[in-house]
Amino acid sequence: MDRPVIPLGKPRPERADAARNRLHLLDTARDMIAECGVDKVTMDGLAERAGLGKGTVFRRFGTRAGIFAALIDEDEHSFQTLVLTGPPPLGPGADPVERLVAYGRGRITFLLERLAVARASLDRAQPIPAGAATISRLHIGALLRQAQPGMPDLDSLAIQLTAALEGPILLYLSSPAPAEITRHIERLADSWQALIERICA
Amino acid sequence: MDRPVIPLGKPRPERADAARNRLHLLDTARDMIAECGVDKVTMDGLAERAGLGKGTVFRRFGTRAGIFAALIDEDEHSFQTLVLTGPPPLGPGADPVERLVAYGRGRITFLLERLAVARASLDRAQPIPAGAATISRLHIGALLRQAQPGMPDLDSLAIQLTAALEGPILLYLSSPAPAEITRHIERLADSWQALIERICA
Repeated sequence: MDRPVIPLGKPRPERADAARNRLHLLDTARDMIAECGVDKVTMDGLAERAGLGKGTVFRRFGTRAGIFAALIDEDEHSFQTLVLTGPPPLGPGADPVERLVAYGRGRITFLLERLAVARASLDRAQPIPAGAATISRLHIGALLRQAQPGMPDLDSLAIQLTAALEGPILLYLSSPAPAEITRHIERLADSWQALIERICA
Repeated sequence: MDRPVIPLGKPRPERADAARNRLHLLDTARDMIAECGVDKVTMDGLAERAGLGKGTVFRRFGTRAGIFAALIDEDEHSFQTLVLTGPPPLGPGADPVERLVAYGRGRITFLLERLAVARASLDRAQPIPAGAATISRLHIGALLRQAQPGMPDLDSLAIQLTAALEGPILLYLSSPAPAEITRHIERLADSWQALIERICA
């Protein structure tokens, strides 16, 4: 199926002042979330708190959801670095099925620890805008290809497994209390492992 | 994992005037969507067009997303009737793996034909509120249980397969042009069938 074209990396370097504004807005948004929660962060409120014009916030993020997508995106870069260059089995060097299992556990932890922000980053009318979905899909596809070189429909299967991994958290799971997050991570990770082992059996 | 408790059916009968208002609001919302698209439907605009108070719309739907969730929910009842009492393989009477495949094709078609409304029904901060996710999860779980009686983790697997089925449409797929919907249905349905056949092999 056709997939959304998601730009990897920026089309051209940001101007220094634009980059400074962006970092300042993201830091301010993180402060506001820590103090009052995701629900209280609005475009107007962020502009006021950051001491910047509403137009700057609008141009930078487009929509309120875009603020949260940018926050998640920033964290994604750290996670992606672990996947690409960190120790195995999340990083390179382990068996592909082990890496798929470790990747699932990593994503589940990543999303559950950022559940309110991750949900708020979903624009109701748009597909997931950040690099997150693309990273998962490409990484899962690459590891499946190593694990099962002859498997047909690999690209479609990678999309479905991305949804099987992230969808329960982004779509169906009630927000767990902080004390319950560890238990949810365990259960979802076990279930992901069982699914991968069935498919790669 | 703990799943959201979703009430099946209404806790008590609606008063006649409340039921009338509800149907009138849903009809009005459908008219507005047909004329101007999902983006133009707001709580205020719906109240005005329906000739009802804003308070009535708010009490009935809670949020703007609630309007679209109620619309999808209405259509779900027709779909659910086909699954429960319609002809096989979507309805009862076929092999469970065939029914899983037919159910997936039915859901993909259902969601793609309502993509804008289905996306707009997602409240950013909340898990999917309608009965839809529950219906898919329970139905997929029941058919898996018939297909693979001894399979462990069936409930978790049903959640993941629900996400694998609905997540690509609700989360990751760019809105296709109307002329492309048939092609998307085919590709997603083929991919769903391959996944089910792999798991139930």
